[in-house]
Amino acid sequence: MPRETVFKFNQTSPTDFRYEVKDLLPYFSEDAFIAYKSRVEAALAFTLAKRGIISQDSAAKISDAAKKVVAEEVYDEENRTGHDIIAQVNMIKKNLESEEARTAVHRTATSYDIIDSANALRLKDGFYKVIIPDMIAFERALITTAKREKDTLQIGRTHLQHAEPITFGFSIASFVSRFGGRILAVKRAVDSLEGKFSGAVGTHSAAGLFVEDPIEFENDVLGYLGLKPTEISTQITQPEPLVDLAHAVETSFSVLANWAWNMYLLQQPEIAEVSQPRGKDISRSSTMPNKANPVGLENILGHYEKAVPEMQTYYSNEISIHQRCLINSVPERYVPDFFTRFDYSVRRATRIASSLIVREENMRRNFNMSSGYITAEPLQLLLSSYGYPNAHEAMGKMSDKAYASGRPVLEVVSEDKDTKEYLGRFTQKQLDLMRNPSKYVGAAPHKAESVANSWTQKMEDLESSLRAR
Amino acid sequence: MPRETVFKFNQTSPTDFRYEVKDLLPYFSEDAFIAYKSRVEAALAFTLAKRGIISQDSAAKISDAAKKVVAEEVYDEENRTGHDIIAQVNMIKKNLESEEARTAVHRTATSYDIIDSANALRLKDGFYKVIIPDMIAFERALITTAKREKDTLQIGRTHLQHAEPITFGFSIASFVSRFGGRILAVKRAVDSLEGKFSGAVGTHSAAGLFVEDPIEFENDVLGYLGLKPTEISTQITQPEPLVDLAHAVETSFSVLANWAWNMYLLQQPEIAEVSQPRGKDISRSSTMPNKANPVGLENILGHYEKAVPEMQTYYSNEISIHQRCLINSVPERYVPDFFTRFDYSVRRATRIASSLIVREENMRRNFNMSSGYITAEPLQLLLSSYGYPNAHEAMGKMSDKAYASGRPVLEVVSEDKDTKEYLGRFTQKQLDLMRNPSKYVGAAPHKAESVANSWTQKMEDLESSLRAR
Amino acid sequence: MPRETVFKFNQTSPTDFRYEVKDLLPYFSEDAFIAYKSRVEAALAFTLAKRGIISQDSAAKISDAAKKVVAEEVYDEENRTGHDIIAQVNMIKKNLESEEARTAVHRTATSYDIIDSANALRLKDGFYKVIIPDMIAFERALITTAKREKDTLQIGRTHLQHAEPITFGFSIASFVSRFGGRILAVKRAVDSLEGKFSGAVGTHSAAGLFVEDPIEFENDVLGYLGLKPTEISTQITQPEPLVDLAHAVETSFSVLANWAWNMYLLQQPEIAEVSQPRGKDISRSSTMPNKANPVGLENILGHYEKAVPEMQTYYSNEISIHQRCLINSVPERYVPDFFTRFDYSVRRATRIASSLIVREENMRRNFNMSSGYITAEPLQLLLSSYGYPNAHEAMGKMSDKAYASGRPVLEVVSEDKDTKEYLGRFTQKQLDLMRNPSKYVGAAPHKAESVANSWTQKMEDLESSLRAR
Amino acid sequence: MPRETVFKFNQTSPTDFRYEVKDLLPYFSEDAFIAYKSRVEAALAFTLAKRGIISQDSAAKISDAAKKVVAEEVYDEENRTGHDIIAQVNMIKKNLESEEARTAVHRTATSYDIIDSANALRLKDGFYKVIIPDMIAFERALITTAKREKDTLQIGRTHLQHAEPITFGFSIASFVSRFGGRILAVKRAVDSLEGKFSGAVGTHSAAGLFVEDPIEFENDVLGYLGLKPTEISTQITQPEPLVDLAHAVETSFSVLANWAWNMYLLQQPEIAEVSQPRGKDISRSSTMPNKANPVGLENILGHYEKAVPEMQTYYSNEISIHQRCLINSVPERYVPDFFTRFDYSVRRATRIASSLIVREENMRRNFNMSSGYITAEPLQLLLSSYGYPNAHEAMGKMSDKAYASGRPVLEVVSEDKDTKEYLGRFTQKQLDLMRNPSKYVGAAPHKAESVANSWTQKMEDLESSLRAR
Repeated sequence: MPRETVFKFNQTSPTDFRYEVKDLLPYFSEDAFIAYKSRVEAALAFTLAKRGIISQDSAAKISDAAKKVVAEEVYDEENRTGHDIIAQVNMIKKNLESEEARTAVHRTATSYDIIDSANALRLKDGFYKVIIPDMIAFERALITTAKREKDTLQIGRTHLQHAEPITFGFSIASFVSRFGGRILAVKRAVDSLEGKFSGAVGTHSAAGLFVEDPIEFENDVLGYLGLKPTEISTQITQPEPLVDLAHAVETSFSVLANWAWNMYLLQQPEIAEVSQPRGKDISRSSTMPNKANPVGLENILGHYEKAVPEMQTYYSNEISIHQRCLINSVPERYVPDFFTRFDYSVRRATRIASSLIVREENMRRNFNMSSGYITAEPLQLLLSSYGYPNAHEAMGKMSDKAYASGRPVLEVVSEDKDTKEYLGRFTQKQLDLMRNPSKYVGAAPHKAESVANSWTQKMEDLESSLRAR
Repeated sequence: MPRETVFKFNQTSPTDFRYEVKDLLPYFSEDAFIAYKSRVEAALAFTLAKRGIISQDSAAKISDAAKKVVAEEVYDEENRTGHDIIAQVNMIKKNLESEEARTAVHRTATSYDIIDSANALRLKDGFYKVIIPDMIAFERALITTAKREKDTLQIGRTHLQHAEPITFGFSIASFVSRFGGRILAVKRAVDSLEGKFSGAVGTHSAAGLFVEDPIEFENDVLGYLGLKPTEISTQITQPEPLVDLAHAVETSFSVLANWAWNMYLLQQPEIAEVSQPRGKDISRSSTMPNKANPVGLENILGHYEKAVPEMQTYYSNEISIHQRCLINSVPERYVPDFFTRFDYSVRRATRIASSLIVREENMRRNFNMSSGYITAEPLQLLLSSYGYPNAHEAMGKMSDKAYASGRPVLEVVSEDKDTKEYLGRFTQKQLDLMRNPSKYVGAAPHKAESVANSWTQKMEDLESSLRAR
Repeated sequence: MPRETVFKFNQTSPTDFRYEVKDLLPYFSEDAFIAYKSRVEAALAFTLAKRGIISQDSAAKISDAAKKVVAEEVYDEENRTGHDIIAQVNMIKKNLESEEARTAVHRTATSYDIIDSANALRLKDGFYKVIIPDMIAFERALITTAKREKDTLQIGRTHLQHAEPITFGFSIASFVSRFGGRILAVKRAVDSLEGKFSGAVGTHSAAGLFVEDPIEFENDVLGYLGLKPTEISTQITQPEPLVDLAHAVETSFSVLANWAWNMYLLQQPEIAEVSQPRGKDISRSSTMPNKANPVGLENILGHYEKAVPEMQTYYSNEISIHQRCLINSVPERYVPDFFTRFDYSVRRATRIASSLIVREENMRRNFNMSSGYITAEPLQLLLSSYGYPNAHEAMGKMSDKAYASGRPVLEVVSEDKDTKEYLGRFTQKQLDLMRNPSKYVGAAPHKAESVANSWTQKMEDLESSLRAR
Repeated sequence: MPRETVFKFNQTSPTDFRYEVKDLLPYFSEDAFIAYKSRVEAALAFTLAKRGIISQDSAAKISDAAKKVVAEEVYDEENRTGHDIIAQVNMIKKNLESEEARTAVHRTATSYDIIDSANALRLKDGFYKVIIPDMIAFERALITTAKREKDTLQIGRTHLQHAEPITFGFSIASFVSRFGGRILAVKRAVDSLEGKFSGAVGTHSAAGLFVEDPIEFENDVLGYLGLKPTEISTQITQPEPLVDLAHAVETSFSVLANWAWNMYLLQQPEIAEVSQPRGKDISRSSTMPNKANPVGLENILGHYEKAVPEMQTYYSNEISIHQRCLINSVPERYVPDFFTRFDYSVRRATRIASSLIVREENMRRNFNMSSGYITAEPLQLLLSSYGYPNAHEAMGKMSDKAYASGRPVLEVVSEDKDTKEYLGRFTQKQLDLMRNPSKYVGAAPHKAESVANSWTQKMEDLESSLRAR
């Protein structure tokens, strides 16, 4: 039977022609879904054989027959029968001659014993083998920057206004910590995905027709696949592990988007603290050949804007009436699409983060715009500690005066009769800091380094645990 | 150059293999998008020719060359140049020998002159030719039911409890009115989609290099395509017309989902007031062969659950910083996917509505469960109007008594010393109604018919206006 | 009965202590809701009197009694009866001595005849009297700026990078057009709000007990209030008019937020093209007395981030099962809260827009950063039109060369052997433009003015129509 | 200064007059917020004293002064200064005479050191003392039902159609497991809330002016309050712990809503498997006195419909540009409102769950409707296992035949020539089950009990851990 083909661009969803991640297709394509469902049917057969209900040979034959099934024939058969799993079961049987084997296919199972378990399996594989490693790669690009730029002076910004000094590495370390934390959250959520093999309404009644210990039987089928059962199920597994995973991904996406926003704003030409090389992530305009548009970052932010409301559907899907209604079926079929777009964005972010150019001289230039005013904070704190009354309000006025006259705050303060006296009480070290506001970075370099080191270690541990699977 | 093909099921988005609408591909596929962008480039060439800037022959050649461009080569070229529209322009030029023609391609245009106008065009075509007609078909299925069942007695339900009598046609007429109103809203929104041809930042400066009246020039290019320009644009058209269209579709989807919920609940076996024939919308279970699962309705509700939060992204996309940022590009590429899934659901709803079986005997049976209590409403109203004090509270108690003893309210009331006297003041007609609660349907049959007739006419008018385009 | 009081800050929702709009309380508070419901009960009484069912005197007494009802007693009574409308009806009756009047209160009505009609009324009042006028005030602040700054040169920005020149007035005119369009959309949606008086399941059966023409009776009750009935209802009005209004508001909020984002970004210290006076919308920091934080704009954006997902609930509320389920009741009670927060944001935006300081010198400075490269667009267009092959790619390279060497593109181009020849074909006017890129603003000043004038007129017309109500 | 008062109903947000939870006001009101911020200022003072920077006496005076501050004066002062924390600091100072104490207030702190730490504290208190105990109470009501009804036969329902038998206790046990799991998730998320004391941009630079070990200083201030610091912060704590908590609450709300949907549907009069006593959660209609409307469940579902999209804002708030922008401030102020509405719903659900009436006789009646068809599943499984070819398809046809003729499937099967033979191979036990489908409940009773017991223990452990705090 020839595989059905389509023209790549005669399609509607950009996930399939523009934002595809080929490495995920072995887990997330419809072909893959069919194959994973076959694996669950095979696991059932081997468990029946283990219990002596069918022969080991029949089980092996079922497993072989299941492997041969391809999506096209299942869809054709579904068209005839109106049911996707009946269709797949029929296609497995079609490849079997032994009557024992034929009648044993799918025995005791309800559709969602197969579907939920197959989905848990392929999500685990897709995350362990592709998405989590991709997230680690982005984390490492952040770590590299945080360490390398731990001493690179930058003006901190709050309310999009200049605040106190930081270092660029310190600002990136914040993302190291946040994104790192999210990788671990994703890992925990993937670990928690569960299968089920408890039959049509979760009571194990069908398995109970054949075995004395149907709950143990579920453990065996799932154990064969490396899955754990949900504590109690309806026709379907409990929905919370999947929504927890979606949440972990969504929050990771938010951290990614926060980083992208920052890098996007730092590339404004008047600021120009970072830049990117021309290429796929920086394009010209079709009419303005001089432009350097950070389209890669905008693409990540666009994917984020699309992704974030989709969480809503995961919450809605927690509601499945009585022993289940099928309303969640459509959204569930789009789950791989959601995770694919996230992974596409992570990969693009890694490419950008790895080639980002830090323009230290511009950071210094922008810092210098405010270096005369930065001291207002430590000045008011120290003045106040030396007994100066209402230092905050007074410094506000002197800052305004300094700004209006284009002079550093310290100069204005030094000339003020009232403050002069208090200034005389400053230690040499304090005065030195007032005169060199670029030293007012506090623990920034230290934090940048320690956070980077801590997450380097955690990523190594995580990779070990992935390899050990 | 051979067209690139893919295996249909080696893909991720169900829109491309499970929920596709083939009739929409000529407008909503990526192939179609490329073709529509070529049409806009051709319109520009013809307008340049009209102004005598290039020859008519060059314009015709550009138009021919643009038609030959296919998506694969554009994507390959984009891979090289990093820009989709530069890529498409290059592919048009590749097909041209005349230097005049080559240098005239895309002249004065910025990418989004092409993209926004192409999108407006293909959305209009997709809606006028497929989606609105599909919506009309569903509306007609509703109209048919409303008229046919205008006298079919049904118990009205509020709070999922029995309330006062209605007719089934009346309950459907409500959807006739609501869905009909939404079709007109969709039509208005599609009519309002706009193009633009005002250049890189909306100032018409590039066109101003070649013509004296660049604003008129924009009118000409768009007029050639049957589009109107936005009043004032940045690099892109104003976003509100598209979000208005999405809103009109989303609210239509909500009405569809409300209908689906009602039909879904009426099929519960204890209620069984409607049913569906076995087939693609009613399936068995893979383990329980006896089941008749309304999977078609569940599928519509699943599509709805997925679609509704996506509106959020349309709102976010109204924000495009300064003269535009590209963040809205990704979500915009998924717009056809959103409308395709809606159309798929409308078609499925039409199939279900057209074959729905109304089980009048069960409606009567369920009505009879409450026929003895329905009279509580008119009784308290009439008693009160005849001067009975606190009729509402009194009838509440007597209803409870009736319910507890399994007797009609009227019987209990008739026996009550205090109420007896007031009951004696009832007219014969009023008493008759009390004894025959099934007559208490008010204007239901009349409304069912008049609403159905009114919308029959409106749909005919709408179709005429579509044909007249 | 003393009115119950609470301490203002012993509360949870910031809408009630931090973001309140006192002018909206007469329409949107719970007190107001009770009063509007009383008005509907009165309208019913007068209609019963008009039909001769009760005396005019009884109707007047009911109206008086209804006016006296206050929220506290209704809530106390609801606590006893478990039903808000029964409670209010009881409180009206409590104020009546005439038996005719007492028994006529609420006659034929179901709760939602009262609630839906009262809500339509108070929303209309709140919008016509406060929110739309507030929106007009913001529109006028935009119009003033657009006209005043129509010639103020500014660099246009796409992808947050410098693009081609515009004027500041032109960029604001875009918001004049978009926000103006939304005001009209809000007005249309408010006009479309409907009442109902069709009884418990929409069949007019209760009214039919007393009058021959229950549909006309509904017209009369609502006409008394200045409302129109919905075409066909269940227990409740059709939900679409309210969701259309919420959409019109939400899209208005998006336009407001887009404006706020732009103004926020233009205040970054390195850009500094606009600024604001110190005051409630620009605050210092608690530790950095020198800071000028644009907290007003951030507050608007924060309100927007909160508001935008709430649309989702309006869509969900379109689904009300069978003749209605009460699920939409809770969200409906929060509708005034949603509109209040929007109005608060509009008012704050007006204050900011009206006092915004345009820093023309900084706009010029930033423009000058790119003035040497802007010409790349017209150069490639003109070169290409004079026959230069691959002008776009060539200009890309020469732009890069120019940028690297810090010289204007025109200089680099003039030195190039290949281009020189084509440059010689430029007209004097074209050359002049190449040398004075600040003239390359196209139709920007014209558009700024014409759009401002057009919307000035439209706002006057709108105000007239509001006054004429 | 007299406390400002307002009339309770002259307000907009129903959270403040209709859905209030008085027990939460000590943590979630604005009064409480002011008090918690004072507590953080006091902790700072004590830490300064511990380091010998100020005297213990000054610290005690600051603490006393901070306790006296009330919201009204802070709001008045904010009105003057334009800054909430400056205002509160001024009000603390106003209560101090000692110059040492006055100048030490707020020393080294930035506003969000105070705000973020105060919010973490009050959320922890609100959850540990009210919300988690309320959740446990609902869990216990579920556990009680699951155990009591573990053997109560009910027909399982999938696709809203009859499926295989379960017990009512088993169906509730599913919610015991899911809601229990969510309580633990909420607890973990609350435990993870963090404070910060790292200054204006997170570098600890201000503290570094006074102490050698500013990172340790942060530990001390927070340790004084029982909080842990975030690993690395900007001006604000990392946003992920709060969004994780919101997610845990949102998913809990979904489970609650799923339970409410089920109970709501089971009360449909034709099904009537559960009911509720009249009272606040079951109301009459204002016109139909006989009705028993489950308004309590509808109220919970309405709160859910409102709450679920609000998660979106938590995700948006993860993005705070550079060292922070203030956009998240507005949404953050509504956080207590969100959690209050959840808690209100949990309490209402507990009241309903605790008084729910299980109508075993109706469950049996509904079960009997399908008892003749239930056997189709085990029949096809057993027939197939005895070698019957295509048992699934054959049973489908025989089920249809049985249904059409109103006879049990087993009867039809017994008469069939082809199947008879296979039926003969059934064991006695299997035949017995075929004749008594009510026994086909599998492990349902066992699961109901074991899940209930397991969660009883877990709730006890949780309460111990709460008491141990």
